[in-house]
Amino acid sequence: MKIVALAGGVGGAKLAHGFAQSLPSKDLTIIVNTGDDFEHFGLYISPDLDTVCYTLAGLANPTTGWGRRDESWKTMENIQLLGGPDWFRLGDLDLGVHLERTRRLKAGQTLSQITLHFCRKWGVLQTVFPMSDQPVRTMVNTVEAGELGFQEYFVRERCQPQVKGFRFEGLDQAAPAPGLLEAIHQADFVIICPSNPWVSIDPILKLPGILDAVGKKKVIAVSPIIAGEAIKGPAAKMYAELGIQPSALAVARHYQRLRPALVIDQKDAGLSDDVNKLGLETFITNTIMSDHTERKRLAEDMLHFIGSNLL
Amino acid sequence: MKIVALAGGVGGAKLAHGFAQSLPSKDLTIIVNTGDDFEHFGLYISPDLDTVCYTLAGLANPTTGWGRRDESWKTMENIQLLGGPDWFRLGDLDLGVHLERTRRLKAGQTLSQITLHFCRKWGVLQTVFPMSDQPVRTMVNTVEAGELGFQEYFVRERCQPQVKGFRFEGLDQAAPAPGLLEAIHQADFVIICPSNPWVSIDPILKLPGILDAVGKKKVIAVSPIIAGEAIKGPAAKMYAELGIQPSALAVARHYQRLRPALVIDQKDAGLSDDVNKLGLETFITNTIMSDHTERKRLAEDMLHFIGSNLL
Repeated sequence: MKIVALAGGVGGAKLAHGFAQSLPSKDLTIIVNTGDDFEHFGLYISPDLDTVCYTLAGLANPTTGWGRRDESWKTMENIQLLGGPDWFRLGDLDLGVHLERTRRLKAGQTLSQITLHFCRKWGVLQTVFPMSDQPVRTMVNTVEAGELGFQEYFVRERCQPQVKGFRFEGLDQAAPAPGLLEAIHQADFVIICPSNPWVSIDPILKLPGILDAVGKKKVIAVSPIIAGEAIKGPAAKMYAELGIQPSALAVARHYQRLRPALVIDQKDAGLSDDVNKLGLETFITNTIMSDHTERKRLAEDMLHFIGSNLL
Repeated sequence: MKIVALAGGVGGAKLAHGFAQSLPSKDLTIIVNTGDDFEHFGLYISPDLDTVCYTLAGLANPTTGWGRRDESWKTMENIQLLGGPDWFRLGDLDLGVHLERTRRLKAGQTLSQITLHFCRKWGVLQTVFPMSDQPVRTMVNTVEAGELGFQEYFVRERCQPQVKGFRFEGLDQAAPAPGLLEAIHQADFVIICPSNPWVSIDPILKLPGILDAVGKKKVIAVSPIIAGEAIKGPAAKMYAELGIQPSALAVARHYQRLRPALVIDQKDAGLSDDVNKLGLETFITNTIMSDHTERKRLAEDMLHFIGSNLL
């Protein structure tokens, strides 16, 4: 059974890692949001892509979910000493990746070529695609601060400004990474990971051709909203600020046109009927992945659900 | 007594540090070669400027003379792991400087503004000028490998190719850094540090206006060649490959049009007459600076010589 997973950062990386532990590596493809990418200090930084790759490689910081384990901060401390901006913290290990990726991009390699190369060096045998080799930049329109680049909103402003909407700069000129649509065509299932629907999954789905390709597949989406809150990040806050009550039902409506089966947490079992009324199947389980075992457990629960209900 | 010192990397930094220990900081200005500067991994790297500033700030690696003391190499190890180029080693502490300088340059600040800012942060109170705010790139023409950028020749090829000549790209479009010519005009003496005449001092002297300004001053040059060899670097090798026997006499001829007093090592006392025959005064002393005390000792010897013979 071939699976394609659409993923943002930490939550998506965790479930992708669960599937990586449960499937032969050739049967798992992960398509990662690059709308969060940005340039900082002249370096090309791809936070979600790094989080997914670090997680699959076993290099991720187990406490934060992003960044590197055993990281050090010598370079950052020196930047601070010189009065440089320190709102986006660049670890010494992490910097090696940003520097080498930036060098390769300037030398003419594509982001997907570089990602493949890095994954091989890290021993990641699954296929990891950046959603596109062309730049797409998620811009967050806010009440207090106008339009902000995603990392400015997310890291520098700590998601404090009130969200009015989103714009995905460059989306119309961007194409899915080479081979990505083919991977979707060949997949038996598309998993939408418990990532932020607005800023992690929407940029992927809005790329030319992807919604059509995913729409032809059986889709299983995992709600990132549990009991009205996001495990991590501003997904619930965004729904509320856009006038939608944050819940698994809101997530169901978000993805409704794809007719996914929706995986909802047991705490939200009471919402199952409302989701079913939208015409979507539900699968109720524990969706919180608090350790490596739980990631694998959720992936295997989902594979079992697929085997029992969707094949 | 106001002194302006022209300096390249390690040798120049050592003597500049000697004068820094011997003069009020307001009376010492150091003009640093930037012909060695280059871009690597998209970062603007200025090796001689960093060596001089690190040395004056007490941050330099005491073993190598360049780079930072207590340096670590986490970023570089990760670049190597990903198959990136490792011929120019970037330390974690050093990288903070390259990143913040590159960021400021991209934001529109000039190299001399940035250098002033960094020096203040590091507690360096002497005035340190990059020779120019415009790019000048020393190109080394070689028999075996054609024309190489200076760092390619110096670091990557370890000065192995045979030198045929030099070209200073951008020199005609470059101007001395703002305030630099004024500092020379106000100086009582110009010191030419024991740096490589071909690739450290010549780029400075060839900038529009500098040779004229220095030519109006009393000049004291320190020979970087002792007993036919350079303490460090390829100066002697370059003289030999260009058909000139490397010696303090060759250095005297190199700078002859400036009519400098030449400081030569006691090992070369026998060359003094020949140098005098060129019309240049000589001052014979121990010019090897093997520790901080020796740097100060040489600077004070030179100040004593100046006071006794040149005022």
